Amino acid sequence: AANKKLLFLPGDGIGPEVMRQVRRVIDWMDRKRKITFDVSEGLVGGAAIDAHGVPLSDATLAEALAVDAVMLGAVGGPKWDNPSDYTKRPEAGLLTLRKELGLFANLRPAVVFDALVDASTLKADVIRGLDILIVRELTGGVYFGEPRGITEIGNGERRGVNTQVYTTPEIRRVARVAFELARKRGNKLCSMEKANVMESGLLWRQEVTKLHQEEFQDVELSHMYADNGAMQLLKNPKQFDVIVTDNLFGDILSDEAAMMTGSLGMLPSASLGAPDANGNRKALYEPVHGSAPDIAGRDLANPCATMLSFAMCLRYSFDLDEDAKLIERAIQNVLGGGMRTADIMAPGMARCSTTVMGDSILREL
Amino acid sequence: AANKKLLFLPGDGIGPEVMRQVRRVIDWMDRKRKITFDVSEGLVGGAAIDAHGVPLSDATLAEALAVDAVMLGAVGGPKWDNPSDYTKRPEAGLLTLRKELGLFANLRPAVVFDALVDASTLKADVIRGLDILIVRELTGGVYFGEPRGITEIGNGERRGVNTQVYTTPEIRRVARVAFELARKRGNKLCSMEKANVMESGLLWRQEVTKLHQEEFQDVELSHMYADNGAMQLLKNPKQFDVIVTDNLFGDILSDEAAMMTGSLGMLPSASLGAPDANGNRKALYEPVHGSAPDIAGRDLANPCATMLSFAMCLRYSFDLDEDAKLIERAIQNVLGGGMRTADIMAPGMARCSTTVMGDSILREL
Ligand SMILES: CC(C)[C@H](C(=O)O)[C@@H](O)C(=O)O
Ligand SMILES: CC(C)[C@H](C(=O)O)[C@@H](O)C(=O)O
Repeated sequence: AANKKLLFLPGDGIGPEVMRQVRRVIDWMDRKRKITFDVSEGLVGGAAIDAHGVPLSDATLAEALAVDAVMLGAVGGPKWDNPSDYTKRPEAGLLTLRKELGLFANLRPAVVFDALVDASTLKADVIRGLDILIVRELTGGVYFGEPRGITEIGNGERRGVNTQVYTTPEIRRVARVAFELARKRGNKLCSMEKANVMESGLLWRQEVTKLHQEEFQDVELSHMYADNGAMQLLKNPKQFDVIVTDNLFGDILSDEAAMMTGSLGMLPSASLGAPDANGNRKALYEPVHGSAPDIAGRDLANPCATMLSFAMCLRYSFDLDEDAKLIERAIQNVLGGGMRTADIMAPGMARCSTTVMGDSILREL
Repeated sequence: AANKKLLFLPGDGIGPEVMRQVRRVIDWMDRKRKITFDVSEGLVGGAAIDAHGVPLSDATLAEALAVDAVMLGAVGGPKWDNPSDYTKRPEAGLLTLRKELGLFANLRPAVVFDALVDASTLKADVIRGLDILIVRELTGGVYFGEPRGITEIGNGERRGVNTQVYTTPEIRRVARVAFELARKRGNKLCSMEKANVMESGLLWRQEVTKLHQEEFQDVELSHMYADNGAMQLLKNPKQFDVIVTDNLFGDILSDEAAMMTGSLGMLPSASLGAPDANGNRKALYEPVHGSAPDIAGRDLANPCATMLSFAMCLRYSFDLDEDAKLIERAIQNVLGGGMRTADIMAPGMARCSTTVMGDSILREL
């Protein structure tokens, strides 16, 4: 079979150094496993602004549209933190990729690794064994709704507007992804919105309910207001299996859930588009942590989240569940052996650099 | 001096039984303290729907506009959970009160009582001594923005829209309240939005920054994206003093912070309007917990949050800081003595009913 095409977009801050460790995993796969990859590399975020004046060049976007999957590091940093022109922000590169590739389903697992149960600010009993999957809608809602902008309204006063908007098909397609994933897991889906105050949330609730009736009656469905969701996540996170929610609530709630695990440096994510006629879907994989400018370039960052994002890539883009599991198990074993980057360091463990963490995982593999 | 006028709106679920305990505190004040009250009572939420077909009658609204302060219990319950007609929902009564009384500043303290430090799912070290104040904008943003609604868009498909909108004066007035409160506390304010993706958030950040420059340079101001805020609250909540944020983010983040304390049944809130020429402001006080229909009418609910809401009423509406402190200290002492309603029950403590908790607090007073 032809090589699979990957586009690497390391981006800013610690992006390049964590992505470098994924390259090593790919080299290992090329040598030892059944699949091989063609990897091209491009710029996104601040790095692209510096080079081309825009956070994503047309050429890089075209490349992203052509490959089988995109691996992204992280975008952003104080150097480019000029919030007044949205098109010149690093984030815009990421938002354009999401929108243009049609990556409407963002999968964010919040998983607690046994070896890291003490890293959380939550009590060990509350989070031990936690395994939630948050499915966040990623190309709609208030992130992209029109009208938007800031206008003068006289007297030196201004008005800032954004539009929260969802249509039936947008809700159904992301809910379908969530129902299907729930079926492969604990068979429970909780949908979150503010149907009690927002019509867009009411439509969300009605359409999720309808799809459940039509196609997924075997999945246990519940609904929760998003504010209550933020509370229930803290009170008893293990009550959840899969959660589906909109772009903005998903942004907040998935970050809350991620921080609950205590190990942001361990959390991957996948952003998926609709399958085409051949069952292939556009996809982008990235760690949940950001660009962490404070530790960038110092070989301190935790590469696990990015490696686990690559494992998700193997699973969701190439149906290589076995290879994905090899990587996941290698990481678990290295953690079990006591190896820790600074972000997850704990008493009695062995502190290591990004590179040494990579070495250890490669050795496990 | 003339009696102060209070309107009691017990509402639904456990609302009436927790409000009854506040009545007892008022009786005590009438007898023992310098201030006396005229208390009238009205219906709101489901109770008002049952009686009048609407969640807030015009007469009750007129009364709320006429009194010095409103005390509210809770609204909502499965009986009235028909989300498809917003005007017939219990929540609409509360939203109308907020809007018509102009209660733009919602003060939500997240405080951990020493005696209850173990009630949280967070580790004791992380939250011991926690004392945050979240100031949530309450009459603007996506809760009230137009256009809104659900429309047919053909092919049996629909579109749900809400509008997030803020103007300069709306931002400035709530930020001013937050800055002023910060000055009386730890002198630190953190403003949260999503200025990186939403223009309404960008305007928010710019206006808060401007007001800081103009009038509050002595207060330490920081800005945080709301998703990061959700994480930082969990990671290190004590880094915060006062947080100011919009209506929707405030809904989520204040509930997250509330649940972090582990004692929802202990948390009060105040919703304040602008001061008039005499320095008086419209105000509504309510516990953060909801109507808890599952335990309603069984003398199980924790009356402390409502009593503490009344303490906030004394402080913010009547400038009776000393009286407020008496109530707060009485509650602390009762907790210190081991008395616990079911929601905060812990091994070795004495479980008690709503009424007995009230008895004990009255005895302390
Ligand atoms: C960087 C930013 C635009 C982005 C978002 O808000 O979606 C980030 O917070 C995320 O969750 O991926
Ligand atoms: C009941 C509901 C309308 C309300 C809100 O969303 O504001 C509640 O959640 C709150 O926080 O007071």
